Amino acid sequence: MAPIGDSTPVALLPGHDEHLTAAIESAGGVLVALEDAHVLVWAGGVDDFPTAIPDAVRWVALKLAGIEEFMAAGLIDDRRIWTNASGFYAENVAEHALALLLAGLRQIPAAVTSRWDKQVIDTTIRSLHGSTVAIIGAGGIARSLIPRLVACGAEVIAVNRSGRRVDGARETLPAERMDEVWSRCDHVVLAAPATAQTRHLVDESVLAALPDHAWIVNVARGSLIDQTALLQAIRRGEIAGAALDVTDPEPPPADDPIFDEPRVIITPHVANPASGLTRTLAPWIAENLRRFRAGDDLVSTISPDSTY
Amino acid sequence: MAPIGDSTPVALLPGHDEHLTAAIESAGGVLVALEDAHVLVWAGGVDDFPTAIPDAVRWVALKLAGIEEFMAAGLIDDRRIWTNASGFYAENVAEHALALLLAGLRQIPAAVTSRWDKQVIDTTIRSLHGSTVAIIGAGGIARSLIPRLVACGAEVIAVNRSGRRVDGARETLPAERMDEVWSRCDHVVLAAPATAQTRHLVDESVLAALPDHAWIVNVARGSLIDQTALLQAIRRGEIAGAALDVTDPEPPPADDPIFDEPRVIITPHVANPASGLTRTLAPWIAENLRRFRAGDDLVSTISPDSTY
Repeated sequence: MAPIGDSTPVALLPGHDEHLTAAIESAGGVLVALEDAHVLVWAGGVDDFPTAIPDAVRWVALKLAGIEEFMAAGLIDDRRIWTNASGFYAENVAEHALALLLAGLRQIPAAVTSRWDKQVIDTTIRSLHGSTVAIIGAGGIARSLIPRLVACGAEVIAVNRSGRRVDGARETLPAERMDEVWSRCDHVVLAAPATAQTRHLVDESVLAALPDHAWIVNVARGSLIDQTALLQAIRRGEIAGAALDVTDPEPPPADDPIFDEPRVIITPHVANPASGLTRTLAPWIAENLRRFRAGDDLVSTISPDSTY
Repeated sequence: MAPIGDSTPVALLPGHDEHLTAAIESAGGVLVALEDAHVLVWAGGVDDFPTAIPDAVRWVALKLAGIEEFMAAGLIDDRRIWTNASGFYAENVAEHALALLLAGLRQIPAAVTSRWDKQVIDTTIRSLHGSTVAIIGAGGIARSLIPRLVACGAEVIAVNRSGRRVDGARETLPAERMDEVWSRCDHVVLAAPATAQTRHLVDESVLAALPDHAWIVNVARGSLIDQTALLQAIRRGEIAGAALDVTDPEPPPADDPIFDEPRVIITPHVANPASGLTRTLAPWIAENLRRFRAGDDLVSTISPDSTY
């Protein structure tokens, strides 16, 4: 399918990117216009995606990890191979999730704001060491996060669709038994895709079931949390706080009260910073291009009926 | 020395503590007044330490990890065994060090303050993954911190007095070669005791030698850093920032400009929170009491000529 021996014609759109260019060229690709391409590496979002992809394009590589907008727009077809970047950014997102969890437990933003209010900070700090963390969604982020949490002396309960054992987790529960997890964990990390099933996964009843010292971390999508219920639960002391890299809506309006709640830590959807994104993606594009040229299966393929 | 079979008379001062009481009683001790004691468990600081310790007291267990004030006051004698709590709090302090480092690298306090300034935050975030962290002082905190950093995908250069290899570190340098480390690491964690030798260990020349993306974390003692030079270096962009659980002086005066520098993260000496301290210490007191009663060597002994 792909010319072996010769260079593979690859369109890199929209615009230039040094990391992806170097990766494509290192793996036997040559940059061409879309009409001459066998591969499209699309480093943009859904809005300016080309309306017509030539039939000669046998593989479209998307830069994004969360591709629900491409799905919703019906862009993912079965006439060619599609890949997303799910998993490639997992290390970075897992690191941010750990940073958020520790920032909450160790009260770091509160300490900065309070300018050495030792009495209050000292008594509200909790240790990750010895705690149990539930990770909802056991994909690449969870696989990267679990060894970090275990090294910090925490135990993990993983929740995934199948309930198939996740390496490093103390136990794994299938999604249909998710209700059991809330009262048995100390803290929660959300790392599941946004689907109809995961919308408002954390709602009033979940918040009531969690222990009052619980921190919730969300590095997935804002829609997974009923944000009104979250803010209420925090104000009532039903949980200790939330550290969110994603919100609903996103960004929150400038006057959203969630910005004023000291027990909510918000970072602006930067778990996988856009500024370093193509550098992170580049080796994976190179790997997939080598596979494509060799006729091997690609990594991180998606299809129109992907349920993630 | 200690009566085996009978209970060992232990004075627990000053005041009551449920965790230490339970530990002492579980390990074969019985609480008595100081004049009847063979062991003194001193859960206070240096200021109200008893002026005279009866000769019958064969072991004094201090609650503190940093015992420079006891040393300076000449309280540590060679007429009995002394232990401090060095190492017992290491997991907790290591966790706080990791939390501070990640809070700096992932720009968490800056993100909270900026209320979704995605453009600025996105470009200033750095990843711990793939970086090299120098740990100065390779005691218990370093031993607890190294596996956490390695799980996060960082490599460690340890610096200790002897240069004897530290497990998990990529390499270990003796203190006399410390100058080599600054240009070869991305970030620095200070975990060395406060001594004449470590005073202003981080000074103007060290700050100049560090890369401009470096974060410095201090969970040891404020005196290890020349704080005036630190603030200048941060303002000049010579390093990226500092995350300090300890300061010089401590606490800083309320109008100290260090509180106003957004690239400085300050927590109020809470790496090992006082509120949970005796709970953490209790199992170690029990362990040492069992050893004392069996005539075995104690853990974490100190002597008048300890080099701290």
